[in-house]
Amino acid sequence: MAKSPATEHPIKAQGYAAKDTSGTFLPLTFSRRATGDKDVRFKVLYCGICHSDLHFAKNEWGVTTYPVVPGHEIVGVVTEVGTKVEKFKVGETVGVGCLVGSCRSCQSCSNNLEQYCPKMILTYAVPYFDGTITYGGYSDHMVSDEHFVLHWPDNLPLDSGAPLLCAGITTYSPLRHYGLDKRGTKLGVVGLGGLGHVAVKIAKAFGAEVTVFSTTPEKKHEALDGLKADHFIVSKDLEQMQAVTGTLDGILDTVSASHAIAPFLNILKTDGKLVLVGVPEKPHELPAFPLIIGRKIVGGSNIGGLKETQEMLDFCAEHEITADIEVIPIDYVNTAMDRLLKSDVRYRFVIDVANSIKAPLDT
Amino acid sequence: MAKSPATEHPIKAQGYAAKDTSGTFLPLTFSRRATGDKDVRFKVLYCGICHSDLHFAKNEWGVTTYPVVPGHEIVGVVTEVGTKVEKFKVGETVGVGCLVGSCRSCQSCSNNLEQYCPKMILTYAVPYFDGTITYGGYSDHMVSDEHFVLHWPDNLPLDSGAPLLCAGITTYSPLRHYGLDKRGTKLGVVGLGGLGHVAVKIAKAFGAEVTVFSTTPEKKHEALDGLKADHFIVSKDLEQMQAVTGTLDGILDTVSASHAIAPFLNILKTDGKLVLVGVPEKPHELPAFPLIIGRKIVGGSNIGGLKETQEMLDFCAEHEITADIEVIPIDYVNTAMDRLLKSDVRYRFVIDVANSIKAPLDT
Repeated sequence: MAKSPATEHPIKAQGYAAKDTSGTFLPLTFSRRATGDKDVRFKVLYCGICHSDLHFAKNEWGVTTYPVVPGHEIVGVVTEVGTKVEKFKVGETVGVGCLVGSCRSCQSCSNNLEQYCPKMILTYAVPYFDGTITYGGYSDHMVSDEHFVLHWPDNLPLDSGAPLLCAGITTYSPLRHYGLDKRGTKLGVVGLGGLGHVAVKIAKAFGAEVTVFSTTPEKKHEALDGLKADHFIVSKDLEQMQAVTGTLDGILDTVSASHAIAPFLNILKTDGKLVLVGVPEKPHELPAFPLIIGRKIVGGSNIGGLKETQEMLDFCAEHEITADIEVIPIDYVNTAMDRLLKSDVRYRFVIDVANSIKAPLDT
Repeated sequence: MAKSPATEHPIKAQGYAAKDTSGTFLPLTFSRRATGDKDVRFKVLYCGICHSDLHFAKNEWGVTTYPVVPGHEIVGVVTEVGTKVEKFKVGETVGVGCLVGSCRSCQSCSNNLEQYCPKMILTYAVPYFDGTITYGGYSDHMVSDEHFVLHWPDNLPLDSGAPLLCAGITTYSPLRHYGLDKRGTKLGVVGLGGLGHVAVKIAKAFGAEVTVFSTTPEKKHEALDGLKADHFIVSKDLEQMQAVTGTLDGILDTVSASHAIAPFLNILKTDGKLVLVGVPEKPHELPAFPLIIGRKIVGGSNIGGLKETQEMLDFCAEHEITADIEVIPIDYVNTAMDRLLKSDVRYRFVIDVANSIKAPLDT
């Protein structure tokens, strides 16, 4: 008989898990491996809630193994290190993002692009090297190979910094990769949610002139006064959209709901770049004509490699960039997911894990 | 009363024109402007037939002003030059491609990217600076500002070289711009028609390893033996397509008929580039997921600027690249268009203009 999550490893762990496609979270006792030579064990302090957590909890991408303990925006404090760990010490504050493994030898890995390694291992819900399923940060502690652990900058808040591990790197990396990180870049950010609001802050720190596109006119005040964006456009207002035709160098589209991308192509200059980081269920409609007559591109980008994630954390610490968050206890997670579905959060829930997961909870 | 095409300018010209959306070509007497200070007048020798000619003739893009005299793959010999012309002499062989005007002062023009100038003027069917409509190479002679005239390399054949002025630059420019011109690049070419067959030749000259994708299994022999492509894949054969998943650096998609692009995204490596130069009537379906998980892009490209077009002609002359053509007299043009619609040409029709447009034809 296959071992259960509670017994497959020697170290008992407590978490919150979705156990079926209802996506309802319940307490779960499971287990973590013993600290390997290159492993860092750490107590989880805070963990952000990413929309992906909900997709995985409900198996909406068809790859979930239940029970699923989500969470890939994790900040904690080191409690034990393996004998060959070089980069971390007990007591140090650390972060873990979306990845806990990769082959370390392919071309992507060699280029510090572990996120594109064909064998990359997500932080939760997928098989690890030993065949057991990975469990994320909705749990009392974690163990990770040190390569996938980040140093937490001294002045970066633990709670509001946690979402940077996904929302931050997901927006920082494409801005860098597609050359949209230059001072004076005229940048659009589509969607003002967990990703979008961090994108605005990072882009402003790069020195960009930022235009926020949203379907929600009420977000204008938040965008301009709260996030210091330069312009705000209601993307369903044809007149506003036409007024900015051909004006932007790049657009970062963070929206995961189905939406038309052609209007955004028209807003790009010649050689402009539309970068998608949201994954709608249905394919986009892509007219070839605007791409051709303006040599424009539509590109994608997936989180970032470990080296760049560390660079992003250091950059955000230096520029005092954090997410706007609402801190919640772990037993609020089901309510939080309901509110997330309604976009009823400004802009990220972060679970105060250390103060809400304590005693053994369940089997 | 507005002047007619026959009387608006002082110099009489003979051509073949479509006069309504039937797209049927008939002889037309029209007129050309007097040679301006910076103008080059030349007798047309050869003119390639591009699929765009048919789109314009039938007003399928909704921008045609009738009568339309198409033709933008034009080779001729200079008969007169304006007083301030510096680059050309009477008797010299020259080429004119898709453009005859642009603003010459915008950022695109300053960067030798006249094709992206918002005021660029196509060689036929659109208003010129003086308000009269441009007429293309299906005619006895032409007049063009010298900036839009190319030097014809000595050893480049006049007939089979003519299609390079559209098919050549349309494929050469994106290979250069998207960095797919490096020796050893693993390149796909989708569609083996007027554009595709030239793309294969140019890519091979760059040193690429070229895979041709076609829906027509019968083209395998032509692709491998005739065009010296390295591999041939029947794009509707799932098994063949899956066997090359994740193997190509870039793909140049030359197909103007509706087709799925998602299968080609899967064939790209991480950071791979799918470049569209064909314009299907309907938008493509673009799934975001493959773009994101492989940081791939879909881009477009439109012909090329004058400087790069000259560079391309010189490159093709050096590497002995020409189009595979079928030379026809001008009065065969209607039959040629019917055959073009059925892809019944290997691979480009070229009109022997000088030997088939002679006397006044019509009013």
